[in-house]
Amino acid sequence: MIDQKTGELMNDFDLICIGSGPAGQRAAVQAAKLGKRVGLIERSEKVGGICLHNGTIPSKTFREAVLKAISGKQANDTAYSTGFSHSSQKLFGRVNKLVNDEVLVQNDQLSRNNVVVFRGDAQFLNRNEVSIENEKGKRKLKSENFLISVGSKASQPRGFETNGANIITSDEIFELTQIPQKLIIIGCGVIGIEYASMFAKMGVKVTVVDGRKRPLEFLDAEIVDELVQQMRHIGVTFCLGEGVKNAARDEDETQGVIVLTTSGRRLYADLAIVCAGRIGATEKLALDKVGLETDNRFRLNVSSSFQTNTPHIYAAGDVIGYPSLAATSSEQGRLAALAMFSKSVEGMSPNFPVGVYSIPEVSMVGLPEHELVKAKMPYETGKARFKEIARGNILGDRNGLLKLNFHRQTRQLLGVHIVGTGATELVHIGQCVMELGGGLDYFLRTVFNYPTLAECYKVAALDANNKMNL
Amino acid sequence: MIDQKTGELMNDFDLICIGSGPAGQRAAVQAAKLGKRVGLIERSEKVGGICLHNGTIPSKTFREAVLKAISGKQANDTAYSTGFSHSSQKLFGRVNKLVNDEVLVQNDQLSRNNVVVFRGDAQFLNRNEVSIENEKGKRKLKSENFLISVGSKASQPRGFETNGANIITSDEIFELTQIPQKLIIIGCGVIGIEYASMFAKMGVKVTVVDGRKRPLEFLDAEIVDELVQQMRHIGVTFCLGEGVKNAARDEDETQGVIVLTTSGRRLYADLAIVCAGRIGATEKLALDKVGLETDNRFRLNVSSSFQTNTPHIYAAGDVIGYPSLAATSSEQGRLAALAMFSKSVEGMSPNFPVGVYSIPEVSMVGLPEHELVKAKMPYETGKARFKEIARGNILGDRNGLLKLNFHRQTRQLLGVHIVGTGATELVHIGQCVMELGGGLDYFLRTVFNYPTLAECYKVAALDANNKMNL
Repeated sequence: MIDQKTGELMNDFDLICIGSGPAGQRAAVQAAKLGKRVGLIERSEKVGGICLHNGTIPSKTFREAVLKAISGKQANDTAYSTGFSHSSQKLFGRVNKLVNDEVLVQNDQLSRNNVVVFRGDAQFLNRNEVSIENEKGKRKLKSENFLISVGSKASQPRGFETNGANIITSDEIFELTQIPQKLIIIGCGVIGIEYASMFAKMGVKVTVVDGRKRPLEFLDAEIVDELVQQMRHIGVTFCLGEGVKNAARDEDETQGVIVLTTSGRRLYADLAIVCAGRIGATEKLALDKVGLETDNRFRLNVSSSFQTNTPHIYAAGDVIGYPSLAATSSEQGRLAALAMFSKSVEGMSPNFPVGVYSIPEVSMVGLPEHELVKAKMPYETGKARFKEIARGNILGDRNGLLKLNFHRQTRQLLGVHIVGTGATELVHIGQCVMELGGGLDYFLRTVFNYPTLAECYKVAALDANNKMNL
Repeated sequence: MIDQKTGELMNDFDLICIGSGPAGQRAAVQAAKLGKRVGLIERSEKVGGICLHNGTIPSKTFREAVLKAISGKQANDTAYSTGFSHSSQKLFGRVNKLVNDEVLVQNDQLSRNNVVVFRGDAQFLNRNEVSIENEKGKRKLKSENFLISVGSKASQPRGFETNGANIITSDEIFELTQIPQKLIIIGCGVIGIEYASMFAKMGVKVTVVDGRKRPLEFLDAEIVDELVQQMRHIGVTFCLGEGVKNAARDEDETQGVIVLTTSGRRLYADLAIVCAGRIGATEKLALDKVGLETDNRFRLNVSSSFQTNTPHIYAAGDVIGYPSLAATSSEQGRLAALAMFSKSVEGMSPNFPVGVYSIPEVSMVGLPEHELVKAKMPYETGKARFKEIARGNILGDRNGLLKLNFHRQTRQLLGVHIVGTGATELVHIGQCVMELGGGLDYFLRTVFNYPTLAECYKVAALDANNKMNL
């Protein structure tokens, strides 16, 4: 280990994980459970990574706070004045408390497993040594193996600069001191769409701008269409197919910002949030010292067992790209740790769910319709609108949609696509059917609790069955 | 068919369903889809049965209205005055609208399938004829087969009488014109517990009285303990192990009621609701004309294909007893229709979920722990508290509990027991694993959306796995 006074290298490790998000954290604990000596390097003051501090957890907590406030507003319209009465402090207060609780849980888990945590920026010195630097100085660590789990950061926009005040990136949202009245979201990927819908649900006037013609292109198009329609109903304006040429402080309005699109349109707002994709946070690692190169988004390529081209260095999480979800990153970390210490590993199942925490939620497992068409798969679709089932009406979510695709010959389930309340939970039933080889007949014969949203599976299966019998 | 003017029998049917709840409705539609001529007799003015008019649907809609109002209260404490500001009109208003919408949906489905609906009280005249009576007169109908799906009604209490005002049965709740401040629920079965928790959540002071020592004895005891604790925290008093000797209007308090227990305790409240079990609504059927007898709760015995001792008469739904759930009744109706027209039928899977819509919700599939002990099954338990997962903390439900029982040798899943937010939805993942033969390893290798409550399955599986490896 390290002498805390001199910073001298006293001992070495079997594994050092660089970055303490879901991938690094899980790999560290897994390796420790195998009896390995594990170090974990974290740049920030607290463990947890983007997921915990700027990403998944804060945004989902924020989302829940918005929904609770709105739900109360709907239940008792007279009790609220028009508009949204919550301050950013009130909405973000829960976020901070929750994040701090999670940090405690994670620290506890690391220390129970004897994972040694170091704070500082890591940099490779050679194949087996890294230096860590923080405000107290530098030190060296040595390890047999490494896991690069440094995560990602918001990419800076091209053509203009953020200013930390009214032109910010998505990483800075939780530093806001007030909720804007008019907001421009630049980028229609997962993060842009999630925040656009949350702010719109609070009554903020939101415009989404992106050079791409459609948001969330990896999802089933019909589901995205429904999401876009529902977002329009809560006041989101989509300005797609034209990029942003410039964004700047509005000199006539002290608080304002002007966004100039490539078509020459001028959009005015109180705040612009850049959600223009994410890049691997690899720039300070000195990867050339270990023979590694990154792609054009500063990300690393890995094998199916998460090994880089340098055999004793693995990578997992956002830094290796799609799907960049907390759940998959965590599983990647676990599998990487097992792989590097020669436990046989199956590799990750392709049937992992993808969740978009917009309002309404979207989730999918398996293949979207455009992929089935591309693969020339003979399939049939079954759909259920939430308004067709009692629970959807009880919840007041009549527009939710669940869509199942089945193989026409084998009747196996090929994909599940949901938009609506509880989509991210509901998708797991379909995932289970896919993983365990069930299909259309499972849904036809199964009794679901009544009234639940799960009944959508039965309604959609009956729909597909009727079409297949035609 | 019938001549609407003379009421003369003009034609006969292949099947007449008596009662239009989930069982009768589904059987009628299924038989119609097989090309059969189907009649459906409903005593009330609207189709749907207890489920739709006094039971499942109204109570779950009421529950949702309570939760929405409470959620808003928590989100913005200052916007509400102390106590619950909703009138019964406001809370029940949504119920009526929803019920009417569902009636339209069901009527539509029946007429699309050419099911002929008759209104009136049915009575067997002989083996193939029933008379129907309503305020316009009597008529006769003839059929090859019958399904008795008359449902159930609240049993009247023993030793005292209800008065339709402040001593009522659970069937009369939605006729209330105001929310009581103090409420006594007589009976700790599913219906008693559901209403006790809903009223308590609204701030009503609720006491539950029952001669039985424990509520909901068919559920896993640990789950019920957690439910009871959570209900106590919202102000429910349990007065168990002593029955009710008498209940009467309080002569000193015009609005009051006094309940006298078998131990001599006197309980005071504004309202007493009797939830003392349900009995089959068979009394007016003249079952002796078709050679059938009922049990001591006026229910019918049937075979595994829902056939009574009189071969051309089937029965399904509440009238045949446990589990008396809308979802199982509907499936029973479908299977009965298939069986009677000689389609081969598998019979109902034993892995149907049971849902209790209390606050918090409870759900189970498979066997509770006391049944595993009785069967001398070698099993291991894994548990997850909602506070151990991010979603539980985000939702603010830290006390939720998911419990899985696995076979120690085969590692198969034997039972799922959940108390907490979303329990009735969440249980379907476990149900799917049980039905498709999965077990512990499914949960260990599966990636769930993060953050979701479904992650509880993984945490509980890891817990069971650790114990099994000891």
